[in-house]
Amino acid sequence: MVYISNEDLDTFDHLYRINLINSCSGYKSANLLGTKSKGGVENVAVFSSVTHMGSNPAMLGFFCRPTTVTRNTYDNIKNTGFYTINHIDESILEDAHHTSAKYDSHISEFDKTQLISEYKNDFFAPFVKSAPLKMAMQFVEQYHIKANDTILVIGKIVGIYIEDELLEDDGFVNLVKGNVATINGLDGYAIPKSNTRFEYQRPK
Amino acid sequence: MVYISNEDLDTFDHLYRINLINSCSGYKSANLLGTKSKGGVENVAVFSSVTHMGSNPAMLGFFCRPTTVTRNTYDNIKNTGFYTINHIDESILEDAHHTSAKYDSHISEFDKTQLISEYKNDFFAPFVKSAPLKMAMQFVEQYHIKANDTILVIGKIVGIYIEDELLEDDGFVNLVKGNVATINGLDGYAIPKSNTRFEYQRPK
Repeated sequence: MVYISNEDLDTFDHLYRINLINSCSGYKSANLLGTKSKGGVENVAVFSSVTHMGSNPAMLGFFCRPTTVTRNTYDNIKNTGFYTINHIDESILEDAHHTSAKYDSHISEFDKTQLISEYKNDFFAPFVKSAPLKMAMQFVEQYHIKANDTILVIGKIVGIYIEDELLEDDGFVNLVKGNVATINGLDGYAIPKSNTRFEYQRPK
Repeated sequence: MVYISNEDLDTFDHLYRINLINSCSGYKSANLLGTKSKGGVENVAVFSSVTHMGSNPAMLGFFCRPTTVTRNTYDNIKNTGFYTINHIDESILEDAHHTSAKYDSHISEFDKTQLISEYKNDFFAPFVKSAPLKMAMQFVEQYHIKANDTILVIGKIVGIYIEDELLEDDGFVNLVKGNVATINGLDGYAIPKSNTRFEYQRPK
């Protein structure tokens, strides 16, 4: 095995380091966050840090560094209180990844890609039309992470839209059936083609 | 599409709800966290919430609810300051999932499964021998999440071990080559078999 120490990390160039460390947590979620400014400009951006925090209340968190490309998403959430989380599937990989480009806040990524914005049930923020699973989210609270000056943004799920064939009888959402993507590192996308479920485990 | 409102969620039974909400963030990381108590009892437990927080400093976070099965992991980290994060690959899926069973703190999951503990470079906490990527972690800080009484545990990477063939020339770790797993929901495991990398994106 290759061994990389803490000291080795400091000798790597920027790109090598971010490629490496972004791969280290394992596979990541692949989501498009949809928001809209108070002035009505839509925004959609790829995130790989959306994480389950708890089921009751149903809450998801994500990390952002508001000084980077994610600034528009963060500002819109803070100013309006609402956003959407949309799963990236195989059919929109390239456009989804393109939303990582640094556009000014007056430009909508929906206008620069084939991604189509969609409004449902009078929810304020735009959904991504083709996404096989999409959620209406309401901002709950945020934490400033002192150790690296990032922000954990926490929201509660206020509505879920799921393609019928993904939802199984016991509530399990079969992401394989939706050709949902997972992210490896900064720029790698994989589409799992099969999965295995295991039973609830008790001590032997 | 099926639409599930916030009010619908409250009508579901516990298992349906946790299956559904645990699937909603998309694919999750599949890791075994290795710890050791001050008294020398090893612990290893499956987590699906390990998330990349930043590359410089290299930091990862995970969520836990210390009143549940993750209590031993949390207590050991708080008491000793050290833990390991080990990727779950195809060869250890069943044993990895079995570590979700609620064992008492004086019992090591290494003794109840075929998982083998391994010590490297005098690091305090045990690694999982067969894992294709494993990291030595040092506790940095924690945040109590008021909204649902969970804890975000943040650590810095102090050492990384990677199977040679996974590490590519630009620092990208190809998880597909390691048959690394990703978690769908509470109990679904998938092994992505191919991936695609995209270039750094600039505005069109």
